[in-house]
Amino acid sequence: MPIILGLDPGLACTGWGVIRADGNRLSHIANGQIKTDAKMPLPSRLLQLDLELKDILIGYTPDAVAVEEVFVNKNPQSTLKLGQARGVVLLGASRGGVPVAEYATRLVKKAVVGVGNAEKQQVQAMLAILLPGVKLAGHDAADALAVAITHAHLGGR
Amino acid sequence: MPIILGLDPGLACTGWGVIRADGNRLSHIANGQIKTDAKMPLPSRLLQLDLELKDILIGYTPDAVAVEEVFVNKNPQSTLKLGQARGVVLLGASRGGVPVAEYATRLVKKAVVGVGNAEKQQVQAMLAILLPGVKLAGHDAADALAVAITHAHLGGR
Repeated sequence: MPIILGLDPGLACTGWGVIRADGNRLSHIANGQIKTDAKMPLPSRLLQLDLELKDILIGYTPDAVAVEEVFVNKNPQSTLKLGQARGVVLLGASRGGVPVAEYATRLVKKAVVGVGNAEKQQVQAMLAILLPGVKLAGHDAADALAVAITHAHLGGR
Repeated sequence: MPIILGLDPGLACTGWGVIRADGNRLSHIANGQIKTDAKMPLPSRLLQLDLELKDILIGYTPDAVAVEEVFVNKNPQSTLKLGQARGVVLLGASRGGVPVAEYATRLVKKAVVGVGNAEKQQVQAMLAILLPGVKLAGHDAADALAVAITHAHLGGR
């Protein structure tokens, strides 16, 4: 019964979600959001992100990590911030030797809702059906659970 | 006599340079470039960058790390790649508790050559004067040494 950690990286907020995939049956284990303070220096924010991610990896010992592939923003400074957080997250996930897969946002929406241009509300409504009783820590945590589900469906377990 | 590690981050090639700053006297210790193979998966490239940077930090035990601030590219995919490498480099540098400073490219050129729009050749000519006998591993290593020198001049040792 593989445990999958989904991640939606961001400098201000990184969503994470852990599910168990037992054949076609999915179950929710945990979800949350790592927030870093914009008033802190960038290296400290990246360090905090790295440490909190490490706690999650140690705490839930996932068999696979699935990361949302980035929507490249039109604002270069936002893209750079996202890239910095994403680099730390990909590094942290791969450091423990766990395989890391990436899934484009469109693919995640298609895997969870059935259409590539689904709204956030549709994704979250499907999460409530696929993972009964789930309480979402926020939008980014929801996106992270959706990536984990995408990996359960497409990851070739 | 503080030892300063300068870094010019990039996913394909990260330049690094170590100098010793003894008051106004600078001396060259080492410089090089960390290259990652574009054919490898992104998490593996970031892992390699992290490991090689760690070796440098352990080998030269710098008292300060100075990182070139990013020229935000007009190509969002390039900016994202740069951001990912930069996140890993900033994290690695700050993980050991060494203070990390950032300097904009213009400021680096102004500190080393005297003008903010200096050409690469002018920067490298000044490096040869400021660090007699230096052999440059490449353009990115030269930029990294220039950032280290900038920190020696402006970092308020």
